[in-house]
Amino acid sequence: MTVREAVRGHETRRSALQDMLALTERPGIISFALGLPATELLPADCIAEAATKVLRDEPYALQYRPPTRDLKECVVNLMAQRGVACGVEQICITSGAQQGLSLLSHLLLRVGRRVLVEDLTYTGLLQAIDPFCPAIRTVPAAYAEGIDVEAVERELGSGSLPAFMYVMTDGHNPLGSCLSATTRASLAELARQYRVPIVEDDAYGFLRYDSQGLPPIRALEQDWVFYVGSFSKILAPSLRVGWLVVPEELTSRLSAIKEALDINTMTFAQRVVTVYLRSGRLVPHLATLREEYRKRRDTMLCSLRQHFPPEACWATPGAGVFVWVELPEGYDASKLLKEALATAQVAFLPAEAFAASTRLARRNGMRLNFSGCTLDQIEEGVARLGHVLRSHVETLAAD
Amino acid sequence: MTVREAVRGHETRRSALQDMLALTERPGIISFALGLPATELLPADCIAEAATKVLRDEPYALQYRPPTRDLKECVVNLMAQRGVACGVEQICITSGAQQGLSLLSHLLLRVGRRVLVEDLTYTGLLQAIDPFCPAIRTVPAAYAEGIDVEAVERELGSGSLPAFMYVMTDGHNPLGSCLSATTRASLAELARQYRVPIVEDDAYGFLRYDSQGLPPIRALEQDWVFYVGSFSKILAPSLRVGWLVVPEELTSRLSAIKEALDINTMTFAQRVVTVYLRSGRLVPHLATLREEYRKRRDTMLCSLRQHFPPEACWATPGAGVFVWVELPEGYDASKLLKEALATAQVAFLPAEAFAASTRLARRNGMRLNFSGCTLDQIEEGVARLGHVLRSHVETLAAD
Repeated sequence: MTVREAVRGHETRRSALQDMLALTERPGIISFALGLPATELLPADCIAEAATKVLRDEPYALQYRPPTRDLKECVVNLMAQRGVACGVEQICITSGAQQGLSLLSHLLLRVGRRVLVEDLTYTGLLQAIDPFCPAIRTVPAAYAEGIDVEAVERELGSGSLPAFMYVMTDGHNPLGSCLSATTRASLAELARQYRVPIVEDDAYGFLRYDSQGLPPIRALEQDWVFYVGSFSKILAPSLRVGWLVVPEELTSRLSAIKEALDINTMTFAQRVVTVYLRSGRLVPHLATLREEYRKRRDTMLCSLRQHFPPEACWATPGAGVFVWVELPEGYDASKLLKEALATAQVAFLPAEAFAASTRLARRNGMRLNFSGCTLDQIEEGVARLGHVLRSHVETLAAD
Repeated sequence: MTVREAVRGHETRRSALQDMLALTERPGIISFALGLPATELLPADCIAEAATKVLRDEPYALQYRPPTRDLKECVVNLMAQRGVACGVEQICITSGAQQGLSLLSHLLLRVGRRVLVEDLTYTGLLQAIDPFCPAIRTVPAAYAEGIDVEAVERELGSGSLPAFMYVMTDGHNPLGSCLSATTRASLAELARQYRVPIVEDDAYGFLRYDSQGLPPIRALEQDWVFYVGSFSKILAPSLRVGWLVVPEELTSRLSAIKEALDINTMTFAQRVVTVYLRSGRLVPHLATLREEYRKRRDTMLCSLRQHFPPEACWATPGAGVFVWVELPEGYDASKLLKEALATAQVAFLPAEAFAASTRLARRNGMRLNFSGCTLDQIEEGVARLGHVLRSHVETLAAD
């Protein structure tokens, strides 16, 4: 028996994202595959200034130290900008949204229980729940309206309740959808009625393009909604700072879980984020991001109209960093990806990468990211993809 | 039903350490309670320089990026200084040693399996395994010799094997012990013979005072030893950077588990550590730490001889940051702690805080940290504790 055979732990599946992250480093590739923020817009100078200030002014900057109120107070202010009223006692600071999802899975799940997700959902959630071997129940989701609320109601009414349901309210990953006011209200009401927690992932909620937008579900229901926020998309991913807004009586349990996972200490990165936020720079930075990402989104939509076959469908995403393109039935986006990589040096992610169950019927969707490429790259990449699609159709026709 | 009642996840126990961390912030307290590195020796200037360099020179410093070889190469060199030969393919970078323990628990454990630990052990390991509700088996450990190898052999020979055994080779937390060459060799041999992985926690192995010291067990056995290292005690805790050395065929599984817990990305802190290590400053910094901590240790031992009753026993710790004091049988260190806090403003941790099972027979041990206090504080704090002990004896006599 080798050590590999002796290792009896549960095997966590690797997401397609890590392979794609390695791939995007290959020169010449135009990648729409990941949800990367624009590298050139990351505020390196301001972060350097904040880091220097922290190390100069805070004698305990590098020491173990319990999480402080400072950052939580900043988060409370930020949540107010999203239309959510909460207090510092309801905030848990996390190492990014992914750790937020993992902490909530540890809090809410027991081995083998049900989790309710959309049939196309964020892979990180599937990884976070994976150690608990949950029974995954799915409801349909569409790129225009997002989650199918009637299906949620049928599922909850069917008897065995899930430990929680997972929802992305704005800038859905991968679908790009934003939920309507009615849908938000219905989900809040269902959570209350069936006493099922909603894990609301709002990683993209601050990247809203066309209007003020609607507050997240947490603004409508504070007992049954567990809100997940992150600085990765609005400040910098490699700082790994995010937060949860949860019912106050559960924060101490979450802090014990965090202690078990990585010691619940105020990290250097958390101090840097605190100083950055207190400098008041996030608001203008967010305005810059929204303006630039809106341009990139519009360029992508324009290029799609120009280069994609008329049978392809998409909507204008009101928030987030993804456009979801649905090809006519019969298309297999996974096969297309292989062709696009081989013949056109363009990457994206196919529907299959986001399938919550292996029985996914729809294989004809493509997730295209617009935040991580320049306008020129977007035009060039979509043109190349359009070319691949046309050749693909000709091949299909010739078959 | 409230949300608290609806939350069905497993309740992770909070360690005494977090409460103590909050307590140490109270003015006037002399705390020997935690394993804090000396705040005034943390290299803030060098870290600030490294952070500025990273943000100036690395265009992707704040972006998602897969873990790179750079830091792993630095770790391979560091391991060579510990007498361990390994390759970059065997290294996983973690968010501190605690995440290392959590990752290995996810890798090695399934719900309900056995874990073999010492009866007094590091609480962080107990928290890391807690989500898997393991059956905890214990073997005795002593402050002079550390783990009882014969008891380990009896336990392994008894039939049902544990998923892994947890060992601290040098500077044991809480006992301060370093294992003999014979014990190291025996443990390596037992791991091979019974095909049971050893999780070797070496957080304090680089803080060795009296001699070159012995290499860790990983130097004797590379298939069955999973080594846990950390920069928290030798560089800075709040950077949260540590590492694992594991069999090469398991690194990709660990990287998938890490992705599920917090996204496996090269963090800003990891880049800063890389630049710091490449500057060659760690070796002289370690020499400074060893020299200063040796002085603090010796001052503590000297103060103990002066102020503690002659029936109290302790050994000279050859590594790490803790002295373990064993009081005569019948003493209850938890009660003493309450008295010490109330009447003398001194904190330490009692044996009870490190008990692997609730049936701990020995309540008469005290863990005293010497790295986090100045020489004056150590003399004053031990003198005060000695006074509390004498009053305690008089109270016992009067009862």
